[in-house]
Order: sequence, then C-alpha cells, then structure tokens
Amino acid sequence: MAVLLSTKAATMAMWRDALLAVDPTLEIRMFPDAGEPADIEAAVVWTAHDMAELRRYPNLRLIVSMGAGVDHLLRPPGPPPGIPVARLVDRMLTTQMGEWVLLNVLRFHRQDLEYRAQQRDRVWLELDAPVTAERRVGILGLGELGTHAAGLLRGLGFPVMGWTRRPRQVEGVETFHGADGLAAMAARSAILVCLLPLTPETRGIVNAGLLARLPRGAFVINGARGGHVVDADLLAALDSGQVAAAALDVFQPEPLPPEHPYWSHPRVVMTPHAASITIPSSAAPQVVENIHRARAGRPLINLVDFSAGY
Amino acid sequence: MAVLLSTKAATMAMWRDALLAVDPTLEIRMFPDAGEPADIEAAVVWTAHDMAELRRYPNLRLIVSMGAGVDHLLRPPGPPPGIPVARLVDRMLTTQMGEWVLLNVLRFHRQDLEYRAQQRDRVWLELDAPVTAERRVGILGLGELGTHAAGLLRGLGFPVMGWTRRPRQVEGVETFHGADGLAAMAARSAILVCLLPLTPETRGIVNAGLLARLPRGAFVINGARGGHVVDADLLAALDSGQVAAAALDVFQPEPLPPEHPYWSHPRVVMTPHAASITIPSSAAPQVVENIHRARAGRPLINLVDFSAGY
Repeated sequence: MAVLLSTKAATMAMWRDALLAVDPTLEIRMFPDAGEPADIEAAVVWTAHDMAELRRYPNLRLIVSMGAGVDHLLRPPGPPPGIPVARLVDRMLTTQMGEWVLLNVLRFHRQDLEYRAQQRDRVWLELDAPVTAERRVGILGLGELGTHAAGLLRGLGFPVMGWTRRPRQVEGVETFHGADGLAAMAARSAILVCLLPLTPETRGIVNAGLLARLPRGAFVINGARGGHVVDADLLAALDSGQVAAAALDVFQPEPLPPEHPYWSHPRVVMTPHAASITIPSSAAPQVVENIHRARAGRPLINLVDFSAGY
Repeated sequence: MAVLLSTKAATMAMWRDALLAVDPTLEIRMFPDAGEPADIEAAVVWTAHDMAELRRYPNLRLIVSMGAGVDHLLRPPGPPPGIPVARLVDRMLTTQMGEWVLLNVLRFHRQDLEYRAQQRDRVWLELDAPVTAERRVGILGLGELGTHAAGLLRGLGFPVMGWTRRPRQVEGVETFHGADGLAAMAARSAILVCLLPLTPETRGIVNAGLLARLPRGAFVINGARGGHVVDADLLAALDSGQVAAAALDVFQPEPLPPEHPYWSHPRVVMTPHAASITIPSSAAPQVVENIHRARAGRPLINLVDFSAGY
C-alpha cells in the first residue's frame, strides 16, 4: 500500500522525508506519478488537487489536508463518498497564525502605516499614544486559531471579543453568536480579525453590511480564507475611510492576479497565504498516526465534520 | 509654592490638567513663565530643559523626568547639587515599550520587510516558515522595560537571553553580565534588543565590535537611547549584510536631521522617539506623591541613583 502526496514539488519532497522519518516503511508516491491506483491507501493533498481525481483509487481510506482548512476538499464534487477526511491540528500552525495576527494588530494599533509614511517623507512627528485597554478586538471564530489569538491579545491587555456560530464560552473573552451577536460585536470592534472556517454560512461574511457596523476607522485582518471577504465591499470601505486599513493573507483566487487593486492599495498589507505555513516535520506524526489507525480500523484523529463543514 | 513644567506647550497643558486632577491645590507654572523663582518647589521637565537654568530656583527640592530615562538630566552640568531627581516608573510606559519591541521582533521574525517589498513588486511568493523556538533574542538591560519585554517574548515561544551590568536572575531568561557575557550573548542573538539606561558605561555599546559578534544577518532593535548606538558602525553592518535590518526609535540628535542616512535606508525602520510616550494622566499620581513626600520630608519614590546613572 502507498501514500499519495499532491502539492508543489519542493513541498512534496519535504513531506516525503518527514513521513519517512516517522515511519520508514511507508511507500510514498508523488502526484502525478501515482503508480498502480489500487496501491493508494491514503492521499495527503493541498488546495490544487482535484477531488474527482481521487475517485480513481479503489482502496483509498483516508484523505488528509495539508493545512488547517479543508474547504478546498469539501467544495463540489467533494471527496469520494464514504472516505474520511482529516485536517491538520498542529501547534506550529496555531503559533504561526497567532504571530501573524499579533504582528498586524500591533502594526495597526501602533500606527505603523503612518510611521512608515512619515519615515518615507522624513517627517519627525510623535503621534498620540494609543491606549491598549481601549482598543477592542473582535475575533470571528474561536476554534484552535481564534482561541489562541484571543489569549495572546488578552495577554497584551487588549479587550477581546469573539463570535462563533453556536454559543461558546472562552475565559476572558466576551462571546457572541448568531446574526444578532455578529452585529453587536462588530459595532464595538476597533479591530476585526477573521479566523473562521470557510463554509456556506461564513462565505462572504465580511461584506458591506458587516463593515458598515464597525466603528468608523476600524481595522480588518483576514487570516482565514479569501472567500470570507467580499473584496469590492472591503475596497469601498477602505476608500471611504470606514475601514482605516486591512491586513490580508488569503485571497480569491490565489495567487492574487497582478492586476488586483489590493496589491497597490496604500491601506492594504498583504502576505501570500503565508501567515501559517505547514511544516511537514511538525505535521507528519499525526498523519502517520492516522494512516496506522486507518489500517487497523481504529478511530481517526482530527476528522472533519462534514455537516459543520470543518 | 509652585510646580514648574517644561516641555512642548501642548504636552505641558496635558501635564497641568493631569496634576491638578490629582491635587487641585497645586499651583502650576509653565516654562518660561516661571514667575517668582522662590515659589518653585518642584520641576517636572523633559529633555530640552537646561539644567543650569534650574539653579535659579532657591527653594527647589525635587526634579522629575517626564520619562523613564534621566540621562538628559545627568549630563553636565547636571541637576543643582543636593536636589533629588526622580524618574517615571509607569506601567503604561512599560506596556507601550513592550508592544513596540514585540511589533519589531515580529516584523523581522515574520520577514515583513521582504513581504512588503514583494507586495510593492506584485510578487506572490511564500518564504520559508520561520521557527520561533530557533530565533534567539538577546536583550541588553533587564530593568522594568527589559524584563517586561523578555516576558512577552518568552510567552510567544522565543528563547530569550538578557545582559546586565551586574549579575541578575530573571525567570526563564538566560542571563549574562560583564564584558565577557556581552560577547557571549551577542554571538547567539539572532535579534538584539537594547533597553539599557544610557550611562558612561553603556554609551556606544552597540558598536562595530559588538555587531561583528552577532550571527550574520541578525536584527538590531533600539528602544533605549540614540547614544547607545554608534551610527556609522550600524550603517556599515547594515550595508555589509552583517545586520539584516534595524528598528530604531531613538537617535542622536533628536529630531534626527533630514539628511541622515537612516531616513531612507531600506533596512531601517524608524519611529520618532514614540515607542513609549508618557501619558500625563497615568504618570501624574506618582509625581504628586513625590511632591507631597518632598514637602513632608518623607523618602521619595523612583529616585535616580546618581552613582549608577539611572
């Protein structure tokens, strides 16, 4: 039996080495060189892989996403019926996303865009001191990533709020849920951070209606999926001053086309889906564990809940 | 009796209001309108005030710096003989400096200068994921500011080292002291953060010798005083690639002259002595407390140790 990898060539080589370091008996195939289709027992894939293609493997019993998000696996046609899908739950993914969120919260909180412009123009001017206890941060999503980011921000003294689909309690975080809760939290979010899974319910959640509810001059940070943001609405809010600036790691499509207005917008800070990069050596143990469990017919870990969509 | 304030007019007005909010019976004078010199019992001053001028006030019994640093009060001619000097020890100063250090550590750690350049050039390229546990930070100075910054960095998972003049233990921080310790710590500092007081012993501490000991491609962050850094040496290290980038909040002189090469250096991130801005309403209670103590002949708080220089 064999494990099929599918992503960029350089990353596949890192995954191969990382999986073999955990279990040297694994046979690894690198897409498109899948070999005999009946050999493939597990597929470890990233966003570009076509789910229809996975229907070619009659003995497939496990699909693993190479990241925390699985929206790319669940969109039509979805994974082959009956095949379980696991995502990565990796402390290093969580840590990296926490750093990226913190970097951008502090960038906006500490007026860094203004200070970069002042340096460019050789202007020596001390701006008003920002007060952390008065800069309220609203986080969309309190899963692994959202809860971790909330803890980091609380530790720095920011008041933190969080919104989830279903009611949820998180220590030290003022929580909201449902449509009313979303509007209520937005109205008090000086900085809005999106760390939601992308599902039919959350697609386009950062739209003109939500942005209009933010306090004027709020900041938007999206580390989740490009599909959460209605780009035309965010650009309009940036141009009107309703949103002071945005930090975006994810786009639709990716790579973001060179002609997209985000690239050159003076109030948009972009990273190329790099907020949280899977490190194969960190993620390999849980993938090997799931391969062993699938072979033995034991319950899998980090399984995706198809009804919830994440 | 009266309290003399001396700094920018707008800031003096904030100080006046903040001091009166704590003790409405205080009489406040704003330099240069000092009124009758014999009235002045306390002087609350910032860097531009001439220490020789303070010799005009025969009944002066307390000088207070408007910031954490007091090097500006101690340089020749120094404060009038026998008059105690207090500095501000203010949680908000510490908090702000911690944020500024964290913003710049994360900026460098997360390759933000590279990602800003990539956005400008419309380049979609994921850089190698940085590993926090392998990015060792060395902090020069473990006073209020250094110890707080060390705690924040540890909380994010950075290995943290600290150097002090005299031996010192700080939980979770690998500590060094003396000249040998300085060289040893520098050799392992991927990021070097200066939060020292400026004294004759620490002036010019970030010089060619120290910079040469850093691992190649290290980052330098100075939130202390411009006098800690030998500018020509730092610029040479930046241009050779020995230092990958620097974040500087303090300069010599301030404001930094418009022709200084830091302004336009692509690997220098500047803020105009704004990392930690005194908020008079936060600092006023300790100043009023010291005025009351001075009147009553009780021991003062936050006194400067003239022999140590801070």
